[in-house]
Amino acid sequence: MQIDLILIGDELLKGKVTDLNGPYLSHCLKSMGHSIGRIVIIADDLDSLAVEIASSFHRSDLIITSGGLGPTGDDRTKLALSKALNLPLIEDSNAIEVVKANYARKNREWIPELNQYHRIPKGMIPLNNPVGHAPALKYHLKSTTILALPGVPQEFKSIIDQEIGSLAIPLQNKKTVTFCTREVPEEVLFGTLCPELWSTLEPFGAVSSLPTPGGVILSVECSTQDTNKVSNIILNSKLGPYIWQVGDQSLPEYVFSLLSELGLTVSFAESCTGGLAANLMTNISGSSAVLTGGVVSYSNPVKINSLGVSKSTIATYSEVSVEVAKEMAIGARTILGSDIGISFTGIAGPTGATDTMPVGTVCIGYSTEKTSGAVVHHFKGTRDFLKTKFTMYGYYKILDLIALT
Amino acid sequence: MQIDLILIGDELLKGKVTDLNGPYLSHCLKSMGHSIGRIVIIADDLDSLAVEIASSFHRSDLIITSGGLGPTGDDRTKLALSKALNLPLIEDSNAIEVVKANYARKNREWIPELNQYHRIPKGMIPLNNPVGHAPALKYHLKSTTILALPGVPQEFKSIIDQEIGSLAIPLQNKKTVTFCTREVPEEVLFGTLCPELWSTLEPFGAVSSLPTPGGVILSVECSTQDTNKVSNIILNSKLGPYIWQVGDQSLPEYVFSLLSELGLTVSFAESCTGGLAANLMTNISGSSAVLTGGVVSYSNPVKINSLGVSKSTIATYSEVSVEVAKEMAIGARTILGSDIGISFTGIAGPTGATDTMPVGTVCIGYSTEKTSGAVVHHFKGTRDFLKTKFTMYGYYKILDLIALT
Repeated sequence: MQIDLILIGDELLKGKVTDLNGPYLSHCLKSMGHSIGRIVIIADDLDSLAVEIASSFHRSDLIITSGGLGPTGDDRTKLALSKALNLPLIEDSNAIEVVKANYARKNREWIPELNQYHRIPKGMIPLNNPVGHAPALKYHLKSTTILALPGVPQEFKSIIDQEIGSLAIPLQNKKTVTFCTREVPEEVLFGTLCPELWSTLEPFGAVSSLPTPGGVILSVECSTQDTNKVSNIILNSKLGPYIWQVGDQSLPEYVFSLLSELGLTVSFAESCTGGLAANLMTNISGSSAVLTGGVVSYSNPVKINSLGVSKSTIATYSEVSVEVAKEMAIGARTILGSDIGISFTGIAGPTGATDTMPVGTVCIGYSTEKTSGAVVHHFKGTRDFLKTKFTMYGYYKILDLIALT
Repeated sequence: MQIDLILIGDELLKGKVTDLNGPYLSHCLKSMGHSIGRIVIIADDLDSLAVEIASSFHRSDLIITSGGLGPTGDDRTKLALSKALNLPLIEDSNAIEVVKANYARKNREWIPELNQYHRIPKGMIPLNNPVGHAPALKYHLKSTTILALPGVPQEFKSIIDQEIGSLAIPLQNKKTVTFCTREVPEEVLFGTLCPELWSTLEPFGAVSSLPTPGGVILSVECSTQDTNKVSNIILNSKLGPYIWQVGDQSLPEYVFSLLSELGLTVSFAESCTGGLAANLMTNISGSSAVLTGGVVSYSNPVKINSLGVSKSTIATYSEVSVEVAKEMAIGARTILGSDIGISFTGIAGPTGATDTMPVGTVCIGYSTEKTSGAVVHHFKGTRDFLKTKFTMYGYYKILDLIALT
């Protein structure tokens, strides 16, 4: 089944916004054994949009468009659909009902003069928009279905949730088995460590490898009955010791679920990561059961006053040192009241390097009731990348501490 | 000039990674008055990739591909280029030199058996990769240039920086004027408040409007000599009072630059935003001059011990209250030692709502030497969206406090 996603909007091409709708759609399709075959991002230009829709219509079973249904002059999806499929734009009585209902849901009254929400290509079915005002549209011709959705992620999601069941997507007897490894680069994994692994796995289905700031994600898309065989091959290979998860949770999600199971809490003392470690954990609903809190200790007085780091440790060893990292972690654990304290002090760059301390240096401290300490790592990269990489290594440290208990 | 970007990789289609290369390329092109015309995201499939490259080659002046140059079996870009452009894959002596240099730069020796980095489509020019090992490729035929780059964002960026000057992209006499408004929804801005604005602006060039979690971004792409005229129309319209920036910095970047100019510092006390406010600020290089620190007070003991919130205030008013928010902000300012303290306590959901306190409620506290207080807002949306929206309103509060000084 060929599924195309057309994302419409200059703001996506200009990098002003990050698309969230593709990942959400992927996630929904995955549970049915499918994936998006192709994503096109295209400007709010009527002609190119119409050409794109028409050519996609000939190639695909399901086309989902995102964006261009709003009230402003750069919203041209309905015009493009009309042109591509040769359906005149009309004032549709069903659309009027749907628009009125969308407004009523928000306790507002629809003023037809303010927008063109009720004008839709003839023959298309207007769909409720549980979150916004503009109706989505559905159309079915021959073996192709087209779903035109608003681009605002919350609206897109709510309509996908509402409609996905009605699209008659056949379930597939396929499963993606995913393994997450840590610390070893992709080239070493498949070049030096397991040079035969890739070709051993390929007969089972599509193999893919994705380097991340903390390791590599290896996936095999195989038939459901082969999943155990594939898992055993990988776990018994030399990759085995580097695998921290069989599954596709993010590292923070995985750590969160482990801590929840064990009834353990964590806190973060963050200098160079600046709140990223806490932010990733608090993106998870229910994280308050696991995270007691965090301190972003961007200045030395905060390290001293809020984390109890000793002034003399900073003076003797400098703020980026294993000694300070250790005291930060102890401070986080004892002052913020958690079972585990994790700390980060380092240089995310691009400025701030010294002769002895290059950009990319990070000291990661840890503290539990039984043990406290700190390790130092050296990485290379941009500020964003380093903040993420530092944070991932802090999360790995939590895995290590859990393994020790 | 038509510029196409082809992003290659199952992981992008499956939503496992967010593309960072499109936004970076947009950013570089923008400074020259250009933008990407079309982005296609496509799987690691040889045939569809070759078709995509061939069809793009007929339509575009510049094609940039991202991904598929790595060492593993799912890296098929060179095969696809070879097929699409009918150039046999050969062991190229220049490529061998470039690969050796790429390895030497990292103090490693190249082992030809581990990868196929030196095999490239005949006639293509291998390019240095300042960050990674695989050479990028350049090819010029008739009026079209193709640049095949690695997908790893750090490598992509470094090669774009290295090559963009050599691509002979003509400078355009065009400028995008951008205005950021706050708090008022798009439909109200252009429907009720300024119904004529859009049509007044359109004769000057492409107008676009982008709703964000905190407001709307309005852009007009006009000729450089019209920028003042366009600016005056917008600033003198009824939109004027809602504009917080003429420009396209992010809200945290804008606040950072204002605080830097004024020599003011800020700190955050974050419950429901969980470190996001601090994380966004610390993504900016040099932010240590402006941010003294933050506390992620996910548990009440942290609010009490690390922010000095009184136990009885929490008991009397509950942790999500303007009273607690105010004390958190005062605590942040005084304990973390900043000029401005901003706090967030609320319910990001999806769980945690009470009868009187729905998901989406946030109390934002503020404190300076002269004034302290808190306001309450009610929003709707998913956890991610609400965390972002809460954070943006906290940053708006900093703008308000600065305006008062």
